[in-house]
Amino acid sequence: MTQPAHLHPDRLLPAAEPARSIARELYPEVAELPLICPHGHTDPAWFANNERFASPTALFLTPDHYVLRMLRSRGLSYDDLGIPRKDGKPIADGRAAWRLFAANYHLFVGTPSKSWIDHSLHWAFGITDELSSDTADAIYDTIDTALATPDLLPRALLDRARVEVIATTEYALDPLTHHHKMEAEGLIGRVRTTYRPDDVTNPERAGFLDRLHQFGDLTGENITIWSGLINAHRNRREVFRRFGAVATDHGLPTALTADLAPLEKQALLERILTGQYDPEDADLFRAQMMTEMALLAVEDGMVMQLHAGARRNTDAHLLEERGPDLGGDVPSRVNYVDGLQPLLNRCGNEPNLRLIAFTLDESNYARELAPMAGFWPSLMIGPPWWFHDSPQGIRRYLDQVVESAGFYNLAGFNDDTRALLSIPARHDVWRREVCGFLAQWVAEHRLSKASARDIARHLSYQAAKDAYRIA
Amino acid sequence: MTQPAHLHPDRLLPAAEPARSIARELYPEVAELPLICPHGHTDPAWFANNERFASPTALFLTPDHYVLRMLRSRGLSYDDLGIPRKDGKPIADGRAAWRLFAANYHLFVGTPSKSWIDHSLHWAFGITDELSSDTADAIYDTIDTALATPDLLPRALLDRARVEVIATTEYALDPLTHHHKMEAEGLIGRVRTTYRPDDVTNPERAGFLDRLHQFGDLTGENITIWSGLINAHRNRREVFRRFGAVATDHGLPTALTADLAPLEKQALLERILTGQYDPEDADLFRAQMMTEMALLAVEDGMVMQLHAGARRNTDAHLLEERGPDLGGDVPSRVNYVDGLQPLLNRCGNEPNLRLIAFTLDESNYARELAPMAGFWPSLMIGPPWWFHDSPQGIRRYLDQVVESAGFYNLAGFNDDTRALLSIPARHDVWRREVCGFLAQWVAEHRLSKASARDIARHLSYQAAKDAYRIA
Amino acid sequence: MTQPAHLHPDRLLPAAEPARSIARELYPEVAELPLICPHGHTDPAWFANNERFASPTALFLTPDHYVLRMLRSRGLSYDDLGIPRKDGKPIADGRAAWRLFAANYHLFVGTPSKSWIDHSLHWAFGITDELSSDTADAIYDTIDTALATPDLLPRALLDRARVEVIATTEYALDPLTHHHKMEAEGLIGRVRTTYRPDDVTNPERAGFLDRLHQFGDLTGENITIWSGLINAHRNRREVFRRFGAVATDHGLPTALTADLAPLEKQALLERILTGQYDPEDADLFRAQMMTEMALLAVEDGMVMQLHAGARRNTDAHLLEERGPDLGGDVPSRVNYVDGLQPLLNRCGNEPNLRLIAFTLDESNYARELAPMAGFWPSLMIGPPWWFHDSPQGIRRYLDQVVESAGFYNLAGFNDDTRALLSIPARHDVWRREVCGFLAQWVAEHRLSKASARDIARHLSYQAAKDAYRIA
Repeated sequence: MTQPAHLHPDRLLPAAEPARSIARELYPEVAELPLICPHGHTDPAWFANNERFASPTALFLTPDHYVLRMLRSRGLSYDDLGIPRKDGKPIADGRAAWRLFAANYHLFVGTPSKSWIDHSLHWAFGITDELSSDTADAIYDTIDTALATPDLLPRALLDRARVEVIATTEYALDPLTHHHKMEAEGLIGRVRTTYRPDDVTNPERAGFLDRLHQFGDLTGENITIWSGLINAHRNRREVFRRFGAVATDHGLPTALTADLAPLEKQALLERILTGQYDPEDADLFRAQMMTEMALLAVEDGMVMQLHAGARRNTDAHLLEERGPDLGGDVPSRVNYVDGLQPLLNRCGNEPNLRLIAFTLDESNYARELAPMAGFWPSLMIGPPWWFHDSPQGIRRYLDQVVESAGFYNLAGFNDDTRALLSIPARHDVWRREVCGFLAQWVAEHRLSKASARDIARHLSYQAAKDAYRIA
Repeated sequence: MTQPAHLHPDRLLPAAEPARSIARELYPEVAELPLICPHGHTDPAWFANNERFASPTALFLTPDHYVLRMLRSRGLSYDDLGIPRKDGKPIADGRAAWRLFAANYHLFVGTPSKSWIDHSLHWAFGITDELSSDTADAIYDTIDTALATPDLLPRALLDRARVEVIATTEYALDPLTHHHKMEAEGLIGRVRTTYRPDDVTNPERAGFLDRLHQFGDLTGENITIWSGLINAHRNRREVFRRFGAVATDHGLPTALTADLAPLEKQALLERILTGQYDPEDADLFRAQMMTEMALLAVEDGMVMQLHAGARRNTDAHLLEERGPDLGGDVPSRVNYVDGLQPLLNRCGNEPNLRLIAFTLDESNYARELAPMAGFWPSLMIGPPWWFHDSPQGIRRYLDQVVESAGFYNLAGFNDDTRALLSIPARHDVWRREVCGFLAQWVAEHRLSKASARDIARHLSYQAAKDAYRIA
Repeated sequence: MTQPAHLHPDRLLPAAEPARSIARELYPEVAELPLICPHGHTDPAWFANNERFASPTALFLTPDHYVLRMLRSRGLSYDDLGIPRKDGKPIADGRAAWRLFAANYHLFVGTPSKSWIDHSLHWAFGITDELSSDTADAIYDTIDTALATPDLLPRALLDRARVEVIATTEYALDPLTHHHKMEAEGLIGRVRTTYRPDDVTNPERAGFLDRLHQFGDLTGENITIWSGLINAHRNRREVFRRFGAVATDHGLPTALTADLAPLEKQALLERILTGQYDPEDADLFRAQMMTEMALLAVEDGMVMQLHAGARRNTDAHLLEERGPDLGGDVPSRVNYVDGLQPLLNRCGNEPNLRLIAFTLDESNYARELAPMAGFWPSLMIGPPWWFHDSPQGIRRYLDQVVESAGFYNLAGFNDDTRALLSIPARHDVWRREVCGFLAQWVAEHRLSKASARDIARHLSYQAAKDAYRIA
């Protein structure tokens, strides 16, 4: 059977010769490499319980904020798309929502979402038709039937997708129940947790103080004194490492860090604990905690990830009506140079520190991150994040980072997704784009084909293992 | 006769195969579509009076700030280019100015100005020679002779250019004299006004308070109370709609909006009315007025355009000597995320609101506007504006907006020009670039040719009608 | 002998037809033009004394902060790379450092450093092997032997590299000893100094006040009154002109300028002189000095260069351990619109003023510098600077500046380097990229081949002479 156009084997590769032929040589050598997924948001319950996915809608539509936001932007209602409301009022059922999605699938032309979904429908279900009103029901039924088979169970999907390692992300207070279960079944190592302490480092999240006290209880530390608070993290990081964690992750509105004197830190903590603080204090607390995390990373060797610049829940009404993670987060400008200065001057030359920086502000690439990563031994650049994890996003990234950072200060790829089925698609896009980029440079005689081959393999597989210190 | 190089039929299309052949298929299908011009600055007197244009210089040189600025930047004097002085001192006459322009036409190589002028000379006058010292007089005479013929009268030009709809832009206090005349002649609908109330929303424009009182007189509202001020706008918007207005337009140094409580609004208005305000108050007044305009748009369905980020009249000496709009305006950084937050949280989910955002800060495209337009139902992205309405500007725009906003959150094209003859040229550049972009994606198997064809037609014609709610 | 891949004659030229053939026509016409080097940091002692270079390591590794930073970023130690320490502790010797460099040369794949070094090894030493552990010793020996020959003496290198003019850069207090010697030998004109008064305009540099008093002594002016301080500069600029200076250069963290009233200036100076000033005063002093320099430039016609946006010595530990210029400088965001406003409004229309602006913030290109240079007669845009003096950097630059500034507001190329041997390589990359860019536009019928030919020659040679007023 001939492949339909949207699944063309050459897709994304350079269209013009001589780069096309070179890319066609490079890509097959990396296409089938195992997947290293050191940062993401898949649900650990899937792998712990290995139960069937509920429905096509629950798999492809309801949890995918990329998809929901686009449908919403063209006037579709979240009620009709089956997104639960806090007030419990009725919403569309799964099949009705699916049909609406299918009828509007043309809105995704040109978006990464379409390429991920097209790819997922094909690799997981053998579907080559494009989603549309005409195909909605048939595709729904095909998926629904397949989901009942052993081949589509979560662990089987990890195998089929050649996932060698996958990291989930849990908050500091998470009981890691699913990871306990996976430990008992020998799954830890292939599945790993990641320590994301935003729940106890960001004073502006609702319920922060309660959680901070829970954090003390959980770890047996006195979190009302600064050293006790740090001990609680030290303790908790160790627990996470038992469940495979090689990294911590930090989501912040800015890249601000701080390096306060001990007395200042204690005074700041007291203002936070008594609620007598202003927004500048909240910034400062987050900023100081980044440096503390870096110092703990120097001790324990966990790799530190900084995701800076997401403005969360910009639609207050939507947040109140249905909760977070429904598409209302948007990027904002980031200043990495000033932001990281205190942290890097405190411990940026420590051989044990590894800080991987991500940005949603592409103006950081050439102006800040590449020059900085090309200087500080501790700093690497994470792959294009979120909105920029896309063909054009990857092209802009490689265009802007390689010349100043080289290829070896890049942390390879990670899919950063909660959509399990999109994982192979996302890695595949990255690999195609990397091969296309390198092929172009080979065609311009800037790189030998042998170098291109090495770098393509490195960026497709080994770079992520190295960057995240995965043995 | 063979086309000279600068009018080559393939100009701007991708040079390399296979994209070139695909673009050559796409472009002819959109090249001759009618022009929708929903935002621009042509003089309504032209269409109302339908009189001949005065001279080649008055048509191509004196009113074109793109052209003037470039000549000035290379040391030519505005006196020698025939730009009137406020002190009435002598300036060059039309033909002398034209010769100087022609002698320096090489300065425009690589600029959109040159492509617009080359195109204009050809489509309107059949001139295929390039402007130069050698051709200056002959071209001047050809144009001057042609301008005396019926074919070159303003209304005939609309026909020849296939302009289906064209909007002019008038301030809130404008008497709309020319539109009255056009109404009588049945021209409204094809020609439309646009409500641009900057004259009564920006306290820092000279003469603001006088105008605000005139605004009250004109509308019979008490503009010293906030609700009266808003009523005055409500009233005036209705009048503008009678003359075809489907949109409002707002030119602001920043994208700041506000959502004050009623008492705060009244207090602010009082500070403004008494002149007891500081620059922050002026910002706040403009910001609050944006949200008020959005609320009125929710009521009356007029489409709201925000042109943010132009720093006006940066050369104070030039402003004093000859006035505004002579090239001294420059772009500046814009923050759309924080700026629009109050407005969008007030009414960004209202189905009746349509806000089209334009920027001169291209870093907004991928970081802010595309993610936001891909979420908020009310928000669309306007085409590349001003300095960026150019081949490279359009490429950067499509590169950066499509993946996160999709094609259907784009407002199509508008020419935004006061240069009537450049209108077909500008639309043609947009259409060529859109076809080239889509052809490239088809060549990379990211898009079917059928999709590309649909999107090319949409972005060339229907998108603008839809975005501006033109029936 | 066939050229090895990394020295391919078509390198960097467009890979796809028809642009490739056009570029191959354009490039040979500019490849051999003499080099104009109006801004750089070569050591005047080289040309004055014409002595052999000490060693391969001293030539290629130790002084090259681009190379050092990359090696450091991947964990190599500056001790092992032979970088002197202030505490005098032992460091690696030249050959050991060279071997380490060679063993890690793969880190430079894709960086401009590699292309410069590959090119230098070839043109100066006839070496076509790539550097690696295997070739380290042989290449070291080849270079070391060659350095002892007359062909590799500094002045001979200027000849071989076809350097027509080269400017060094000296601080205001520099005794210009080497230039005195060169004057006696008739070298001034080919070698020129540049007036870089940062040592006496930046209050935050260590030792500033002492130097300011020295400046008064050296010039016989009373630097405690503002007019005396300006006179000291006037005087010193004249001395520099005697040694060929056609330009001044100003390195600043921001693009801030100011235009204070006389009394404010004197009060500011007094705060600076008594040390009773805060960081805002330091900013203001630097800002005001920029405008003063512009006013002096109006008097004496020296071309003013502004290099804005470098954050210096971001690694305080490294600075303390080994000093500056070892890779710890990084770019930061710049605001040229607001920054230059006071200066340009004071004298931006003066025919005698020429201000060449450089940026490390590429978002300035299309948003600020191109629109501003396309308006102000005094303003030109310098070539891509530092991290952006690279193939992709040049592409982004041309993409973003040409349409609004035209080709004739660009200052051509300068190499800005302290690495003598890299000079031909850097100019060659620029020329190749310019030809590739123009070829692409010719292929898209945006430019005639004749225009492309003229512009390629202009940007390769004459533009720099014109911009810097080199007769």
